[in-house]
Amino acid sequence: MKAEIIAVGTELLLGQIVNTNAQYLSQELATIGIDVYFQTVVGDNMDRLQEAVGLAQKRADIILFSGGLGPTQDDLTKDAIAAVLGRKLHIDRLAMDKLEQFFRNRGVEMTENNRRQALSIEGATPLENETGLAVGDAIAQDGKYYVVLPGPPKELKPMFENQAKPWLLQQALSGEELPIYSKMLKFAGIGESALETRLLDLIKSQTDPTIAPYAKEGEVTIRISTKAISESEALVKLGVTEAEIQQRLSEYMYASEDVTLEKVIVDLMSNRGLTVSAAESCTGGMLMEHITSVPGSSVMFQGGIVCYSNEMKKKLLNVPHDYLEGDNAPGAVSEEVALVLAEQARMVTDSDFGLSVTGVAGPGYSERKPVGLVYIGIAERDKETEVYELKLSGNRETIRLRSVKAILYRLWRRLVENERLS
Amino acid sequence: MKAEIIAVGTELLLGQIVNTNAQYLSQELATIGIDVYFQTVVGDNMDRLQEAVGLAQKRADIILFSGGLGPTQDDLTKDAIAAVLGRKLHIDRLAMDKLEQFFRNRGVEMTENNRRQALSIEGATPLENETGLAVGDAIAQDGKYYVVLPGPPKELKPMFENQAKPWLLQQALSGEELPIYSKMLKFAGIGESALETRLLDLIKSQTDPTIAPYAKEGEVTIRISTKAISESEALVKLGVTEAEIQQRLSEYMYASEDVTLEKVIVDLMSNRGLTVSAAESCTGGMLMEHITSVPGSSVMFQGGIVCYSNEMKKKLLNVPHDYLEGDNAPGAVSEEVALVLAEQARMVTDSDFGLSVTGVAGPGYSERKPVGLVYIGIAERDKETEVYELKLSGNRETIRLRSVKAILYRLWRRLVENERLS
Repeated sequence: MKAEIIAVGTELLLGQIVNTNAQYLSQELATIGIDVYFQTVVGDNMDRLQEAVGLAQKRADIILFSGGLGPTQDDLTKDAIAAVLGRKLHIDRLAMDKLEQFFRNRGVEMTENNRRQALSIEGATPLENETGLAVGDAIAQDGKYYVVLPGPPKELKPMFENQAKPWLLQQALSGEELPIYSKMLKFAGIGESALETRLLDLIKSQTDPTIAPYAKEGEVTIRISTKAISESEALVKLGVTEAEIQQRLSEYMYASEDVTLEKVIVDLMSNRGLTVSAAESCTGGMLMEHITSVPGSSVMFQGGIVCYSNEMKKKLLNVPHDYLEGDNAPGAVSEEVALVLAEQARMVTDSDFGLSVTGVAGPGYSERKPVGLVYIGIAERDKETEVYELKLSGNRETIRLRSVKAILYRLWRRLVENERLS
Repeated sequence: MKAEIIAVGTELLLGQIVNTNAQYLSQELATIGIDVYFQTVVGDNMDRLQEAVGLAQKRADIILFSGGLGPTQDDLTKDAIAAVLGRKLHIDRLAMDKLEQFFRNRGVEMTENNRRQALSIEGATPLENETGLAVGDAIAQDGKYYVVLPGPPKELKPMFENQAKPWLLQQALSGEELPIYSKMLKFAGIGESALETRLLDLIKSQTDPTIAPYAKEGEVTIRISTKAISESEALVKLGVTEAEIQQRLSEYMYASEDVTLEKVIVDLMSNRGLTVSAAESCTGGMLMEHITSVPGSSVMFQGGIVCYSNEMKKKLLNVPHDYLEGDNAPGAVSEEVALVLAEQARMVTDSDFGLSVTGVAGPGYSERKPVGLVYIGIAERDKETEVYELKLSGNRETIRLRSVKAILYRLWRRLVENERLS
């Protein structure tokens, strides 16, 4: 079954609000095996609204509407649908009683235009509004299914969940469509295109489960989806595909659910009673901000130092003066300094791990070193400290973020390696 | 001029992400007098994409596309547009050089599919991607204007602002009607509704210039816009409105251009040769990350300390033990500790100012103190240290961000006050 979601409202076209209803309804439809082919936003305009309805009839079996059910003159959704379907509008008694009750309770007289909220399309199944006043509608005509929902998410969600969804399952799906089950696989330390290249044969030959990679905030996510009669059947089918992907990309796949890398690290370390600290130069606190964004991180993170200037590197982290200044000094952006910073960060806080980041975030080089040159260090109690050189591109913000992702990835790898060896 | 925005991506139809690009582009188009009639979302499917392009041609003069420019097999936006316009795709040399440079820098071999990101529609004006790799396109044909933008907001926004918008103004709008000039006024330390209340009479009676307030990442922005024959005429009209707003909200208005509060602070302090440091507990580095996000911040910021645990507060910032532990101890989240942290942060780095943040970001209280209780401190050389108590609402992320905005606001006020008195 193909669906289209039509959100009605000039405020959407002006960018005053973002269309979260389309996202919510798309997610919900996916879970009951309905594929959304188009999302449309149209303003409060009778002609264009009818045009949108007519178009959706041609390209979808199920059409969901959100918005335009209010009391004002520019709330036209039901009028437009009724016109296209050649039906009339009539007052829904229950909704009307509710309206009158509402105003009676407030001791306010109901203005005439409020009656519009009780209008229902003839022959439709009225959908009660549990959290508002405007009634919804569900109609089947000529093999097409129309569901009319209010705009405010707090009214739309319960109406869809409790009334529209069951109606669709019973009327439109009548069991012949299978629900979709899907799973998120998360990757770090590899780009979207490199990842896709490694899976190209799988992606090209994909039928069921389907494999959809996409990049998001410096991490790559793969969503594998399948239609199945039961969750247990789905888990088996998804498991096979996940195992194949995992086997090819094990060193990059850090989770099989939608979590951040920092969350995985915080959990891993907390469970093992391990602690970490950091010394940040060019990232200026972004690394520690990422770690502490995870609730409960206080168990594994005590604190750290932002050593932005050479002064601070010397004073708070004992970086030798001649590493930083002098003709033959490697300079602040160097393997040598990244190493000292990581080890000192660990020692100052007596943590199990110490992380460091020093580099040129730009704009403009420093120490005659190019923008994007970054050194990240990882020190571990009783282990050799490792330093990695990164050559990153992008603007200041991107370079800083990529540096943070890179050191988090290295820390995660180290933790996994240690697990394996122990 | 009528516009349609077409967002491309199956992840949108699956509800995995929300279509914020449509909102951003709608807002931007509104400011240059272009009316958006439809927003459409279509999946990564060649036939349906071409169908959407053909439809948009019939009902709009300007068509903006977002997404589907990536390296993977299902990135088809340019292919679809080229097919509909009867044009070919060719490699954009500049974008290709950038790609090769990117992979050379990283010492990684470029996979073949990456070349797709350098594809441009024949005859189009390539739009450089300042923050990513996929090149955009702007093309005029048969009186219609097509703008092709990347999906990631951090790539789409600069490309639209710096290249697509000027192109539209010059190509599509030239002579069309009076150009729109607008100015951004930025506010901190006040909420959107409080600000709107103070300006309600102006907003209600607005004709020209128009006044549009909107909240954005914890700051409030007002955009005043006017149509004028010349920039000088516009500046006069905008100046009058700005002066009126400034006069009512001077203590909150920190800029009359689209800059962040941290940028204003960095500039103010750099020009005066002033320095600042910070000690962060619950914000875990977010404050220093904000400061160092500004290029050139190294002039006024040397470094600071993230003292997440009580151990660190004692060890690195000399917070007295009996402030932190014991039955009568005020505890880590207290006025007393915020004060010591601010003063110590200043002294450790011998800066002119020292900032501190300590609070309960949640989820879950600590020290039997409620989520959202935050103390921020500001110490200044030879001045009395001030501490402010905040009672913030929202989730962990919001509380941390609002704490950072609050201390930045206090620092800005202090700097402005000092200016006034000197």
